[in-house]
Amino acid sequence: MGRGQGEGYYKMKELSNGITAVPGFLASGIYAGIKKVEKKDLALIFSEKQCTAAGLFTKNEVKGAPVIISQRNIKKGAGQAIIANSGNSNVCTGKQGIKDADEMAALTAKALSIKPNLICVASTGVIGEPLPMEKIRNGIANVVSKISREGGRDAAEAIMTTDTFLKEKAVQIEINGKAVTIGGIAKGSGMIYPNMATMLAFIGTDAKIASGDLKRALKAAVDKSFNMTTVDGDTSTSDMVICLANGVSGVSITKSKGYKAFQEGLSYVCKELAKMVVKDGEGATKFVEIKIKGAKTFNDAKKIGMAIANSNLVKTALFASDANWGRIMCAIGYSGVRIKDNKIDIFFDNVKMVGNGVGLGKDAEREATEALKQKEFAITIDLRLGKAEAALWTCDFSYDYVRINAAYRT
Amino acid sequence: MGRGQGEGYYKMKELSNGITAVPGFLASGIYAGIKKVEKKDLALIFSEKQCTAAGLFTKNEVKGAPVIISQRNIKKGAGQAIIANSGNSNVCTGKQGIKDADEMAALTAKALSIKPNLICVASTGVIGEPLPMEKIRNGIANVVSKISREGGRDAAEAIMTTDTFLKEKAVQIEINGKAVTIGGIAKGSGMIYPNMATMLAFIGTDAKIASGDLKRALKAAVDKSFNMTTVDGDTSTSDMVICLANGVSGVSITKSKGYKAFQEGLSYVCKELAKMVVKDGEGATKFVEIKIKGAKTFNDAKKIGMAIANSNLVKTALFASDANWGRIMCAIGYSGVRIKDNKIDIFFDNVKMVGNGVGLGKDAEREATEALKQKEFAITIDLRLGKAEAALWTCDFSYDYVRINAAYRT
Repeated sequence: MGRGQGEGYYKMKELSNGITAVPGFLASGIYAGIKKVEKKDLALIFSEKQCTAAGLFTKNEVKGAPVIISQRNIKKGAGQAIIANSGNSNVCTGKQGIKDADEMAALTAKALSIKPNLICVASTGVIGEPLPMEKIRNGIANVVSKISREGGRDAAEAIMTTDTFLKEKAVQIEINGKAVTIGGIAKGSGMIYPNMATMLAFIGTDAKIASGDLKRALKAAVDKSFNMTTVDGDTSTSDMVICLANGVSGVSITKSKGYKAFQEGLSYVCKELAKMVVKDGEGATKFVEIKIKGAKTFNDAKKIGMAIANSNLVKTALFASDANWGRIMCAIGYSGVRIKDNKIDIFFDNVKMVGNGVGLGKDAEREATEALKQKEFAITIDLRLGKAEAALWTCDFSYDYVRINAAYRT
Repeated sequence: MGRGQGEGYYKMKELSNGITAVPGFLASGIYAGIKKVEKKDLALIFSEKQCTAAGLFTKNEVKGAPVIISQRNIKKGAGQAIIANSGNSNVCTGKQGIKDADEMAALTAKALSIKPNLICVASTGVIGEPLPMEKIRNGIANVVSKISREGGRDAAEAIMTTDTFLKEKAVQIEINGKAVTIGGIAKGSGMIYPNMATMLAFIGTDAKIASGDLKRALKAAVDKSFNMTTVDGDTSTSDMVICLANGVSGVSITKSKGYKAFQEGLSYVCKELAKMVVKDGEGATKFVEIKIKGAKTFNDAKKIGMAIANSNLVKTALFASDANWGRIMCAIGYSGVRIKDNKIDIFFDNVKMVGNGVGLGKDAEREATEALKQKEFAITIDLRLGKAEAALWTCDFSYDYVRINAAYRT
């Protein structure tokens, strides 16, 4: 499936069972009564062995209490468990919120007989309401008692909010003849416009890797996966990607040994999870890859791609299978990047719709419309100014986005 | 109505008849066959006397051909007529588009017996389709033959696209005992996130004012009116505000004489037109003023206001009369401005919903929900960090925005 650069071949194969595909990881997910409807809302991920750990967190200036607590606990690069609830984000809850997140860590640590600073806490859901701590206390006792080698799916389900399907991915890579597993879970599906980290994603691996190297690899993976997606342009207050590495495989990864293979495996898991989040974007009926080619820099390419991917006008046109390339040109124009509009080519899948900034007529449009009727397609923009490129992922914008978000708290 | 700062009192009263309320200005609007349905689509504004002129144009890197031609023609600060069509924006139409916009100016100039470089050209509508020049040629002959002192309304109607009502405003101010009139027309109502200028707005005045001073006054007016609005975060390729001053009143405005009164009149007309554009935002059911107080700088305040006003999550909540202040906190947090979230107060009209960054409970929420059920209300954010403030205007986000923009080209 992949090829390590400069390190010879290696193999990658997909596994089922998400994060619990990774040796040494247990998980569980239960209904603790936090959500109004009876759907799982409390998840636990636990490594039997202490891990090196890395985390990336939202750059939103308004940070949820769990973000603050997890950032503090993970600072030394160690971790062993993640306790996460859905149904309430514990954001804008003042000092009580911090206390509550801290108590979640403490209770989980006690029940697992590990130190509290080895716990990451995450919460997702409505902003501004106090956590129902009585339910959480009972829930933690319950969720700890249920952890198992098969619990990955339950944990993935318990972190869902408006998600319509659960998101998990695991791969096994071979490094110098030995197997290393990387598995993770994630949730979407609104307030998705990641900046640094995004929404919630929890990844485990049995690689043996120092926390500094793990963080570097995680940042590289997230920058090309979660950070290349947008559903609605809203960067959440609760975004968090945590990676725990328990070393159980016995395979040591260092900057000079196995790093590229590990990086590719980790990037693959992140990218697949990120794509699932976009596919399940609130109200989404279509999954769209936007490729920007011929830019002067990667940042230029990303800026232009994000301007297109965040344009309500583009997204409503995609919903209608309308090859309205004028709105794409318009978004390119206000992206903040210097371009030459009379050089731009635009393709819908492999149908060339715009050449040198001008539309190529009714026949092209008819073919482009067919491409846009698919559930998944790519839009490629060639700026013809340089050699940098970027690929990002978004979805269309339908009535259901409005319905879901007009009704979210009712 | 207003008061000149440091220049004593002056009076301002509203007039009917929009741009043709201004002495010396004639206008007309006709159906030339550019729109698919029989609705006026070609407008002409003409001053009997040559004017000083100022224009502000879109900062989008992709500029419509009419923007390019108008920028060129207005450069020397003189102007006398504006020819504007709706139904086709003449954007992304290559060299032919430039030729066509130039021909529109030339034909209009010839029919009016004035020089072509005294004409501004504007087009609005679908991007990327060639102008139907045969219809435009016949249309120009027709629209010139129909100009009159009462034609302001027809012109305002002929520049409408998805607008549901026409937008015009005129005021008479008294400067040193003499009357000066300022009147204008504008159109919206999608792709509204002005950057420098916005959409189309044409303003006339009978003040006598040098083009440099006129431009300064226009920029100040636009910065606090059109540039403080957003419907959907998409900055159009065709934005343009033109102001023509024919001097017919005999009242000279200079930096030291009557300038503040003139500025206030011009700002008032721009602000009223801008508000109309927002009220008629595509799919809008509510008009919302967002006031940011206690910021360190005006730019900080504007950035935060725009982050809130452009958030789909905030706008869908407003549509649902849901006092979901957490989404507002979230948008403040990702605006790019350093804030202290535990200092922020949020009011819906005069209902305090958030104090020190924390929600004030169910009673406040019940009252806030009532405020949000109104057709018009204000959201006030007090950052409590400084003394700068900004007010901006936006609308909610409804199913109809999706409907209108999914169907726009069909």
